[in-house]
Parts: sequence; C-alpha cells; structure tokens
Amino acid sequence: MAVEAAARVPALMNIATRLRIDSVRSTTEAGSGHPSSCCSAAEIMAALFFGEMRYDPRDPANPDNDRFVLSKGHAAPILYAAWAEAGIITRDDLLTLRRIDSDLEGHPTPRLPWVDVATGSLGQGLCAGVGIALNARRIASEYRTYVLMGDGETAEGSVWEAAAAGVHDRLDSLCAIIDINALGQSQPTQWEHDVNSYAMRWSAFGWHTISVDGHDLPAVLDALEQARRTRGRPTVILARTVKGKGISFIEGKNGWHGKTLKKGEEAEQALAELQSQFVPEDEAAAPPPAPARRQRPAPAPAKPAPPSYRLGDSVATREAYGTAIAKLGAGDDRIVALDADVKNSTFSDKFEQQHPARVYENFIAEQVMIGAAMGLAARGAIPFPSTFAAFLTRAYDFIRMAAISNVNIKIAGSHAGVSIGEDGPSQMALEDLAMMRAQPNITVLYPCDAVSTERLLAEAAYHAGPVYMRTSRPKTPVIYGPDEQFELGGLKVLRQSAADVATVIGAGVTVFEALKAYDELQKQGVSIRVVDLYSLQPVDATALVQCAAATKGRLITVEDHYRAGGIGDAVATAVAGSGYTVRRLAVSEIPRSGTPEQLLDRYGISAPHIVAAVKEQ
Amino acid sequence: MAVEAAARVPALMNIATRLRIDSVRSTTEAGSGHPSSCCSAAEIMAALFFGEMRYDPRDPANPDNDRFVLSKGHAAPILYAAWAEAGIITRDDLLTLRRIDSDLEGHPTPRLPWVDVATGSLGQGLCAGVGIALNARRIASEYRTYVLMGDGETAEGSVWEAAAAGVHDRLDSLCAIIDINALGQSQPTQWEHDVNSYAMRWSAFGWHTISVDGHDLPAVLDALEQARRTRGRPTVILARTVKGKGISFIEGKNGWHGKTLKKGEEAEQALAELQSQFVPEDEAAAPPPAPARRQRPAPAPAKPAPPSYRLGDSVATREAYGTAIAKLGAGDDRIVALDADVKNSTFSDKFEQQHPARVYENFIAEQVMIGAAMGLAARGAIPFPSTFAAFLTRAYDFIRMAAISNVNIKIAGSHAGVSIGEDGPSQMALEDLAMMRAQPNITVLYPCDAVSTERLLAEAAYHAGPVYMRTSRPKTPVIYGPDEQFELGGLKVLRQSAADVATVIGAGVTVFEALKAYDELQKQGVSIRVVDLYSLQPVDATALVQCAAATKGRLITVEDHYRAGGIGDAVATAVAGSGYTVRRLAVSEIPRSGTPEQLLDRYGISAPHIVAAVKEQ
Repeated sequence: MAVEAAARVPALMNIATRLRIDSVRSTTEAGSGHPSSCCSAAEIMAALFFGEMRYDPRDPANPDNDRFVLSKGHAAPILYAAWAEAGIITRDDLLTLRRIDSDLEGHPTPRLPWVDVATGSLGQGLCAGVGIALNARRIASEYRTYVLMGDGETAEGSVWEAAAAGVHDRLDSLCAIIDINALGQSQPTQWEHDVNSYAMRWSAFGWHTISVDGHDLPAVLDALEQARRTRGRPTVILARTVKGKGISFIEGKNGWHGKTLKKGEEAEQALAELQSQFVPEDEAAAPPPAPARRQRPAPAPAKPAPPSYRLGDSVATREAYGTAIAKLGAGDDRIVALDADVKNSTFSDKFEQQHPARVYENFIAEQVMIGAAMGLAARGAIPFPSTFAAFLTRAYDFIRMAAISNVNIKIAGSHAGVSIGEDGPSQMALEDLAMMRAQPNITVLYPCDAVSTERLLAEAAYHAGPVYMRTSRPKTPVIYGPDEQFELGGLKVLRQSAADVATVIGAGVTVFEALKAYDELQKQGVSIRVVDLYSLQPVDATALVQCAAATKGRLITVEDHYRAGGIGDAVATAVAGSGYTVRRLAVSEIPRSGTPEQLLDRYGISAPHIVAAVKEQ
Repeated sequence: MAVEAAARVPALMNIATRLRIDSVRSTTEAGSGHPSSCCSAAEIMAALFFGEMRYDPRDPANPDNDRFVLSKGHAAPILYAAWAEAGIITRDDLLTLRRIDSDLEGHPTPRLPWVDVATGSLGQGLCAGVGIALNARRIASEYRTYVLMGDGETAEGSVWEAAAAGVHDRLDSLCAIIDINALGQSQPTQWEHDVNSYAMRWSAFGWHTISVDGHDLPAVLDALEQARRTRGRPTVILARTVKGKGISFIEGKNGWHGKTLKKGEEAEQALAELQSQFVPEDEAAAPPPAPARRQRPAPAPAKPAPPSYRLGDSVATREAYGTAIAKLGAGDDRIVALDADVKNSTFSDKFEQQHPARVYENFIAEQVMIGAAMGLAARGAIPFPSTFAAFLTRAYDFIRMAAISNVNIKIAGSHAGVSIGEDGPSQMALEDLAMMRAQPNITVLYPCDAVSTERLLAEAAYHAGPVYMRTSRPKTPVIYGPDEQFELGGLKVLRQSAADVATVIGAGVTVFEALKAYDELQKQGVSIRVVDLYSLQPVDATALVQCAAATKGRLITVEDHYRAGGIGDAVATAVAGSGYTVRRLAVSEIPRSGTPEQLLDRYGISAPHIVAAVKEQ
C-alpha cells in the first residue's frame, strides 16, 4: 500500500464504524433487517466506497462511474449507509428504511439511481456483474465493476456460471469480494471459515484469488489495488470476516441472521460499543477522484429497411428472429446478443455472423445469460438473450428479478410447444407464456410469420422494459405484406364476415390451424372470424370484445401451450368485464414424441379440433 | 484390472460397436436424433452396462439394482441400444425411436421402467443422481448410482450445486462420468479437450477425480473399479472421447450435433465402417451378477393424530407446515425433508428436530434441492423440499422436468405474496401459483389456517404425483375444528345465506380479508358468500358454479399473487363453460417494501377493496 493510502486508514476505520452505527440505527428503527450481515462487511464497504471506487456521488448517470452490485442484498442498510457517508442521501433518510413511503427498501432496487439491478435473490449479483463489466468493454469505458457477495450464496450454481463466464470473457475489470462470515441464515455455511476451500474453487475456475482478513483495512485496500492491476482475468477477494463484528454480544453468534437489535437497552449497548471504536484520524479519507464525464454521441438508431419476405414464403419465426436482430444490430450498436450454445437453432448466429464483437457466448448456462443481459441492459445496452423457450425456465428467478428491476432486456425463446415434434417434452416449452405473463411488466409477443416477427422485434427493441418473444420451430407461410404494421398490444383479424358464428383466436403455429379450420368450415357453409393474437401482454381487450360481440359471444382460443396461463387466460381476463367467456383448446397433459402434425392433433389443437369446437353448441 | 476382466475386453469392444450400429440405425430410421453424441459414449456404456453395473434386466423394480441416469438425454438411442443388448427390449423396438406409438422417446422418460427421471434438460442428471444415492443410504442398499454427463452441460450451475451436495453428503456410491467429446451443439465446448481444466474443478470441489481415454475399454473399466473402491466421497471419471467416434467422416467434426446419417449411401457407409470394427472375442462379456432381491417390509404408514389446534389459535401456515411434516414423518420413514438454508423460516426445522437423519441440507442451492428430491422420489422416498416460494423460481426447470417425470415430490413454498411485508419484492412469491398451475399434473394447494395445512399435507403425502403447497408468513387464526376434513380438489364455503349478492373467493391470507369484508358488509345489510379455495389444482368447478348460480352470477376472486395464472384464472377457467365470468382482485404491479397491512391495501387485495368490489355493479 502506498504511503498516502496508509495515512487514510484511520479515517476509513472510522467510516466503517459509522457504517455499522447507521446499519444498527436504521434496522432498529425499522424493526426488521439484517444488521449482523452489515457489520461483517463494514471494512469492505469503507474500503470500496471511500478508498477504491471512482464515482461521482453527484452524478449517478455518469457512464464512467465504477459500479457496485450488492449481491448479498439483505445487507442493504450498509449500502444506504455508505451513500449517506458519501453525501448521496441524508442520515435522516436512513431512518426511513423499509417504510412504504421510502425507496430505501428491504433489499436494493433500481428505484434508487445508484442501483443497477435489484438484488435479494442470492447468487445473482455476479451474473449481473458479468454483464456490467461486458458493457464497459462495449462502451470503451475504464469503469470497474465490484460485486459484494455473501459466502452462503456461493452454493448457488449461478455463481459458478458467472465464474466461468468471467474467465471466458477475460473480464479483468470485474472484482468479486466474498464476505466470508461463516454463518448462513439457519446454520453455519457449508465451508464455514475454511477460506482455502473457497480459494481452491475460484483458482480452479481461473480467477485471480486473494485471501485477506476482511476487517484488516490495509489488507482489503491492498487486495483491491492488486485486483485493479490484474490483467486478463477477474479477481475474487476472499475476505474472512465475523458476522456481527463490532458488537460483542452478537459477534460470530448463530441465530442473529435477520434479527435486529431491540430498541432500548439492547440497541443502546450496541451503539455504545461501536461509538467506543472510533480512532484518532491522521487525515481525512479523501476518496479517489471521480471520473471525468466523457462525452459520447447520443444513440441514433437507423430505421431498418422493411422486411424482405414475400407472401407465401415459408420461414420459421425462429429464423426470422435471427434475420431481424441482425438487421436491427446493423443500425444500432447498443444491440447485443447472448447465447447458450444453441445459436444455430435459435438463429441468433445470423447476428453473430454480422456483429461478432457484440455476441456473448455463455455456453449451456442460461442463468448467467439472463443475468449478464440484466447487467448490460442496466448500463445502456439493448440485450437479446435467446435459447429454447423450455430452457428459459432455468432462469426464471433471473427473469423475475429482471421484472423487479424493470430492465430493458429482450428475451427470445424458440422451439415453443408440441409443434417441435420428435425431440419430446423436455425440449417443448409449454409453460413459457404462463411464466412470462405472470410478471406484470413483461411484454409478451408471439408472432406467427416472418414479417410480424421482424416488425414486432423492432418495436420490442425500442420499448422501455422487459420483452419476451416466443418463436416456433416449424416453417410457416408468410401471411403479411412487408409494409404491414404491428404494435405492442395489437392483434390482427385475418378473416371476418357479417355471418361469423364464432371467433377463433390463435397465435404462432395455431394461427395456421385456425386458417385451415376456416377453409374447412367455409366448405360447410359456416363462417368464422380468425384472430392472430400476436401480443399477449398487453392484449387488445377492446378488439377482442368487439369480436365477441360480432360473433354471437363465442370466443375459442387455440394454443400450443398448457391450458393455464397462456392465450386462453389472456383472452378470458380481457373479456371478462364484458361478460364473455372463452372456450379453450390447449395442451392438457404431459406430451410425448411424435411428428408435429401428430402431436397438434393428439393434444387437441389442430384444425379438426377447432372445427369441432366451432360446431359444438 | 483383474485377469478375468481383461479377457472380457474384446467382447465389450464388440458390444460398443453394436451400440454404435444400433444408435445409427435407429436415428437414421427416425430421421432425427443425435448419433454422434451416442458414438462418443459407446465404450463407456458398454463398460457400465456389461462390465460394471449390477442389475437384473428382468426385474426393473428390484430396489437393489444399480441405477443409471443419462444426464446427456439426447444420447437416448445408445441407452435404448444398451437395453436391447441386455435383452430388456428387442432390436426391432429400437427402430420405433421417436414415433408417437413408441415409448422410446427422443429423450428418456419414466414411461420406461428403467428410467428414474426424465432427462433432456442438461445439467439435471447429477442432481437427480445425488437424490438416488441418498436413497440408497435411506434404504440401506448397496446399490450404486452412475450418471453419464456431457461435457457441455457442466457449464450449468446446477452441476456445481450437485458437486457440492455430493461431497457434503459423502456420497461414495455416486459416480459421474463425463463424456468429454469437446463439441457442443453450436461450437466447441468451453474447455474442449483440456481434461485438466475439468480435473482441477472437480478436485477443488472435493471429488475423487480420474482421467481416462474414454475409448480405452480397460481404462474405463479400471476407473469404474477405482470409483467403486473409493470411500467417503463421490468419483468423477473424466473420459476424453471423440464425437462421432467410429465413423470416419463425422469423427470430431463440428456441425454433426443432432444430425442423423441419411438413409442410403451415407448411413450404409457408416454402418459398413462400424461392422468392420468387430474383433475376435476371447470369451463372452458375462456381466456382473445381478443383486439378490432383498425382502423389505411393505410401507405401513401410521395414521397421524388429528391436528391439535384450537379454534382461534394464531398460527402461521408455514409453521403449521413444519409441525405437520414432523408428525407425518413419525408415522412413515419414507418421508424426508430437503432444505436450502431457510429451515428456520419454513419451519422444516421442526422435522429436523425429530428426524435428523432424514433431512438433506442443500445450503442455498434450490436446483439440487429439487433435483435430489426427484431422485429420492423416483426410488420410493416421499420428499418434501421447501424454501421461500419466491426462490422456487430458481428451480423451475427442475419442477418442469419433475412434472414430465410425474415423480412423487411434495414441494412447499413459504413467504407467499406481499403479505410478507418489509423484505420487499425480491422475497415475495407472486408468480408461484402461475408457474405451478401451468404444469398440468401438479396438484396446487394453498391453505389458510393451521388445521387445513396439516390435513392437506397428509393428503398430499399419499397422493401419487407432484404436489405444491403455498404457505404464508403472517400468523392467521385457526378457523377449522380439528376434525374438519379436506380433500385435494375441494373448497370450503365459510359464509352463506339465501340473500348473498356475490361470492368472494380467497385462499391463504385473503380468506381473512374476505371474512373482514363479510363482517363490514353485514353491518351495511349486504350478504356475501365466502369461499376458501384451498385447492387450486384440481379445482372444484361444480361447487364454484353452484356458488355463482346462487349469488347472482357474481364471482369475485382476491389473491396475494400477480393477476395472471393464480386464483382468478383457476376460477375463471372452471366456470367459463357455465357462462360465468370473474372479477379479479390481484397484485397488478411490482410491489415494494411496507407493512403487510399497508401492502395488502396498496395493491388492492384488502377487505375495503373487497367491499368496494361487491358494491360496484
């Protein structure tokens, strides 16, 4: 450590003490929270925020600020305390912790301008950190990314997905710090204070690994400096700490996780002990200089050319997806793609062929793919992670947290439904619409042809917030002209007449089953209305109610998805207020292998089943 | 290797060749599948099934058979080929691969008696293997568990969760074999043929690690023997292989993943090459002897005593859950519990206090918790994995595969909804009902008081198939007497009169908001019917339709869950056929921190909102 840094140590020690005091005060006032988990991290936080990180407290929007992710989100009070120490918020603000009228929530969320991604579901922070660090490379910034993790959360597999990605992407601007306080929520952690056990794992995964006493400020500062000087790989600092450090009667004691110090004698005693820990200061803890605010050109995305398909062309929507992101990427360098070793099936390889520097390969690791996309989105990229829709279930907790963060990610899931055919149920997404629609702020799109795929993807890219697009494996005919317009929340009426006896609502592959049913029914002298419900969330309730009113109140939905949570429910919810109900054709049991045609028919969603449903009264 | 084993090597080599031939034939006939991924594993499969494993091909139900999990499920054809070689199925059966009339699906499922859990979503097999190995200890069997993994799938974080669990549980009966063929689906794997890179990781995680040439049969047999002799920790065999091995024009070539050999010249050339690889045999490959069928007493679960609560007691359903599984466990030693370091919050620690040997601690690793539960269930245990319901999203892909396997797991999720209060959205499950209901064969229960929790849990335990129970954080009053009966698919009408103007349907905490609304409306001279919909899947459609008919057709649902996929949708689907619609009160935006009461009110699901909904016409 340089001499000038050493002189700042007493001041940083006092900051650590103040962070502990503020963490105790705010959690005691709130009556809930995790003071013991804050206390173990106090020297780490003091060293990071006031000895190491370069950021401008007055300018959270500076793209060159160093970034910090509190992966152990339950230690939120010490993060807020650090902001108070930095002058970003006041100490009075701290006492609003966890109140409904305060943005200082129980776990950090991006309601606060200094938070990139919501945390609190353990094991996600390093995945987001990978994305944030990738973004530094994308915008050619020198900013560094720090992720503070708990020891217990390294049991999460997602941490090891991030560990692999960090090395594969050579992210030397990424630094993880693990607060090894040896105590989990319900019992000691798996490896307790065996720091070597951590060191072996992280070294084996290729990280630069440094072990320190996490309460030894000069050692922590030294480790951060070593991390900053390391090239070609990320660094993990393994900080041996004591949970509840600084408060004698809770230090290292099991049973104090998520427990506050009771107002009155208990809290007073803790605060008195902490007050006694202040030391004389040689000089103030002047933090490193803030980064300059570099001017960067404002994004000016080029409007993509219209789709180049012709009516009747046969193109799978998954392939149209690949073509569409490649085109969008040509006009906007914020657009990036993330893959999990299926790019030749999702056709995101079309993007890679044109924009290889903007593709991040995660191999078969869906959690870090979505987590990194969250981090990229939080820092201004427009990421398109994609895989088989079935395997997005692997990342549902990340998708849930992306919704809480309301980040700008554009998720694509291919190979939806039984129409994938012979590969069988493990590869068929039949619950993806349910899981995406459940999140109230995720826009859910399900185009049926290449033109609508390309048009909707452009809308999705520039919509603020998370979007999910479902694509299909089989080739389907192009039914829309290249100038047809589509909007989020819209639908298309494909067939209609004054004589319609029912409205059949499909999306994706079932649109074509509905059109086949239309033709068959026409032969029989029966007319139906056919709707392509390409936007499932939001949904065009007004148009659906009009369809119901015009077709004897009969709405029939048909979907390559399980019965709950998909098209049927979206339509039923939309029309319930007008008194209409829905007849649902959907997959109602665990399917099996077979040809796409056999399976559509066996599970009741083929044209003959639609014809039968129209004819039953 | 012992001399007698060496004499069997030529016969085993010929078996490997036959496995390749059968894999090519069946996939060529099907026109889809993954022959190249089969060919890399042929010697491993020959060694396992005909040199190492003890099992009785005629008795798949023998609980002492060694177990095999094909984690790289896309290599299903070589598994089926091994069964044909063992005489379990015929070679003609193999040619039905992937047909709708055949159980030889694209990826293995437990439709086949030799398959414990469905695979095909990569990274799950070792998690299931952990559970299967734990079961051997539970039933005091000597059986061993073998898991064949692909190299690409070790990028999945779940593999490292399983790696940690296998060491923590000292599972020396567990042996993983990684088929390191260096090629993924879309490109070379992350570490290609750098076997040392794998060895470092697995050693760091504490596994006994053996590296071999995966096509050197004596070496593979030796490694398996070493694994069998290893005590105190599991073994991983790192087998360096060549994708497409044995077929010169696809060997080690990228671009042959999931691609079959075309019927005609291409397939014929491959088969001719393989035919030429047969060698003279010294002696037949007599497999190891099958295990004897040990007699074990049939399970005779004791009927638990009735709940011991009194009307008006204040008990959180999460706590009642803990009490209930502890009681059930006392009467049936098949019942086991799995935790992810929240047992003091889910109250599964009550089970641990009484049955410590039947608790498996996974630390903060939900994927292996559910995966291991799948493996345990597949071998006869009745596992109860539990965590915060929000964190079950982390394991949704495992839950999806558990549904495909239709295994007997009983998942519990606590801390549902905004009623948890101050911890904020990251800890609130608001999509769990949607994700569970989407799976058509998962029974979904949501009790509101301690008696119904205990009664329903006993029903759940002995129901064949997956069950999910949602529990709540706040204490709620006991409203049912100890002798009240509950059934899967039932509901309770708590208030009713001939004058009811609407039916209000709640579950969990909202039952009490509905009861408060009832009292308030009574004061105003308005009567409503109140339903406790404790079973959401299946749902009692008949009773709901009767309620609607008796209360002017007005159904109002109120739920501590997002709008899509929960109680409102369950009721709407149930009554749609009778022409009734539903007015839904649900959480419609991302919530924040606050007190439970403040949040119920802010998000529109408190008693005053129910009163208002009843009064609006």
